[in-house]
Amino acid sequence: MIYFDNGATSYPKPKSVVNAVNYAMNNCANPGRSGHRLSLKSSELIFKCRENLAMLFDLDNAEKIIFTNNCTTALNTVIKGTLKSGDHVIISSLEHNAVLRPVAALEKQGVSYSVAEVVQGDDEQTIGNFRGLINAKTKMIICTHASNVFGIKLPVNRIAAMCKIYGILFCVDAAQTAGIEPISLKNSDIDYLCTAGHKGLYGPMGTGVLVINSERTPDSLTQGGTGSFSADINQPDVLPDKYESGTPNVSGIAGLNEGVKFVLNRGTENISSYEAQLAQRLYDGLSNIGRVELYTAFPDSESCAPVISFNIKDMDCEQTAERLNKFNIAVRAGLHCAPLAHKSMGTLEKGTVRAVMSVFNNRAQVNYFLNAVNKISKV
Amino acid sequence: MIYFDNGATSYPKPKSVVNAVNYAMNNCANPGRSGHRLSLKSSELIFKCRENLAMLFDLDNAEKIIFTNNCTTALNTVIKGTLKSGDHVIISSLEHNAVLRPVAALEKQGVSYSVAEVVQGDDEQTIGNFRGLINAKTKMIICTHASNVFGIKLPVNRIAAMCKIYGILFCVDAAQTAGIEPISLKNSDIDYLCTAGHKGLYGPMGTGVLVINSERTPDSLTQGGTGSFSADINQPDVLPDKYESGTPNVSGIAGLNEGVKFVLNRGTENISSYEAQLAQRLYDGLSNIGRVELYTAFPDSESCAPVISFNIKDMDCEQTAERLNKFNIAVRAGLHCAPLAHKSMGTLEKGTVRAVMSVFNNRAQVNYFLNAVNKISKV
Repeated sequence: MIYFDNGATSYPKPKSVVNAVNYAMNNCANPGRSGHRLSLKSSELIFKCRENLAMLFDLDNAEKIIFTNNCTTALNTVIKGTLKSGDHVIISSLEHNAVLRPVAALEKQGVSYSVAEVVQGDDEQTIGNFRGLINAKTKMIICTHASNVFGIKLPVNRIAAMCKIYGILFCVDAAQTAGIEPISLKNSDIDYLCTAGHKGLYGPMGTGVLVINSERTPDSLTQGGTGSFSADINQPDVLPDKYESGTPNVSGIAGLNEGVKFVLNRGTENISSYEAQLAQRLYDGLSNIGRVELYTAFPDSESCAPVISFNIKDMDCEQTAERLNKFNIAVRAGLHCAPLAHKSMGTLEKGTVRAVMSVFNNRAQVNYFLNAVNKISKV
Repeated sequence: MIYFDNGATSYPKPKSVVNAVNYAMNNCANPGRSGHRLSLKSSELIFKCRENLAMLFDLDNAEKIIFTNNCTTALNTVIKGTLKSGDHVIISSLEHNAVLRPVAALEKQGVSYSVAEVVQGDDEQTIGNFRGLINAKTKMIICTHASNVFGIKLPVNRIAAMCKIYGILFCVDAAQTAGIEPISLKNSDIDYLCTAGHKGLYGPMGTGVLVINSERTPDSLTQGGTGSFSADINQPDVLPDKYESGTPNVSGIAGLNEGVKFVLNRGTENISSYEAQLAQRLYDGLSNIGRVELYTAFPDSESCAPVISFNIKDMDCEQTAERLNKFNIAVRAGLHCAPLAHKSMGTLEKGTVRAVMSVFNNRAQVNYFLNAVNKISKV
């Protein structure tokens, strides 16, 4: 199978990831709660994963790394742990439902929100659109690092700098970029970074990461046993315990650790450049097929993550995906859980076919894909 | 290693569980979001696990089964999704921090709570203690099915019946009992059952289950992409989507599916009876060692789950565990994240050593364990 659905989850996983999961299933017990060998092994693997993620994101303190079950929970933690009745939040027009739905749910509790339009190719205008929506009650700006549908990147460092000037918290959804685009949080004004562990970080599904890069820590979404300060009726305030209640996904985190090591070994710059080349080749080829509709400008790696959305004219996106599936090609069709982005792009009615590649894809597969789209478009 | 720390997580896992996790790591992608083979395989595995859990808990509808990352999140979902300012909730004196801490956190938001004392060996009195705390604002009773420290079982079916009479919601924490004690929800007045997937259900860590056995569905703790109704800004209200936002732990659920099948094949009655015999043998042996302190009456399977807590007189529980570890025996020492239970038993200062067995333990291991405790107690 030619797998171009890496925007949903990366596949295949590196062998080291699969092996680490298997090892943990056979050699690990509950971490941080007991003193025996199987428990200590788990604690060690989790600690190593925290350290490797801290290295990847250029952080001085591994305790800023919080493990969650997915990016959605990380985002919900920041959103619900920060915004209270009376607060205002600004989100971008490219947000996933993992941001839009919790924000919309909070609206019923007195939190107001505005949507800043992202202008492709004009960061100045995009930042201006965010700035124009700031009011006295604005507590936080949340935006995706890159659209999960169209790949369009947001100028997160510039937005972060603006947030600092205005004293506003800034949260970035890096689900589509972590492991693919270099991200340094060391001297960054990004307060919270949320990401999935199972996409560009090559870990198993069931893993997510929340980076708390601020002194202002959100309330925790859940409270419970942390294996620490157990006699205290209150959730501990220390990181990472505050956000990690209950038994963690040990085998998942063990796999994620190897995924992160895989990324560190290859280097995000190399990964980014390799995937950008594939995406550009794909875009070029698609733009030469008569009935293909593309929605973004040429995906240069400065302004775009390697995510390509398209349609074949007069063909339902689901039908296109189904036909590609007959060519043994895996893509995803539909709204990709991001109705705002489609509304912004005028594709809310029809959705798109999305192709996202990983380091395991290559030029020959892109050629085969283009050939298949060409054939399908002529039916 | 002789592993008696099954109260934290069961170990080893059945081979079928480890194999299923490995299979999923190699053959599954993101479920319910795409139409290709790897995605459909994931959806199928998750659906099967839901069906097997529904069979285990005697439910007519597999959609009542919600997957979470652990029991703590399941409990937090029920607690925070149900209790609002002005409500009153009653919890038992044996609750884990997974119940106590979220309830205590809600106290700051105007939710009040009372603790009903559990009287070992006197269900009548225990129920009376719950009944005596009910007031006009009482919305829910939450209690553990069996103490994770002392094994003491609560008369959950009788409490459920009482809750129905009073029109109060009832939530049971079955973290220590699912897969070990038969649980039928078919004609039960238990509204919500929360459990871990990685203990008596033999699944991987990183899995938990919430059973919604009521028309009154809690608000969801998180909102996000569900792969369904994507154009709607509101979280879908249908089960299980309402509670399952973001990418699930596919390999974990695939493993849990095999764990549940393992339990179904053996039969909970057989598992319960086997583990009760081991626990009784252990209790008997411990009670014959001079310096050993036990805290519960003889663990007959009617009133106790197979969980044994003890101490060696004048020896720190951590020290006992450490010495057992030198005999290659894994137990857990401390408060087991359940300060309420220790307060109730008078062991809050010193904690306990806890031994919990699984179907993979046997009489010879119990004998070896007793011999080790005997030797340690004479030092």
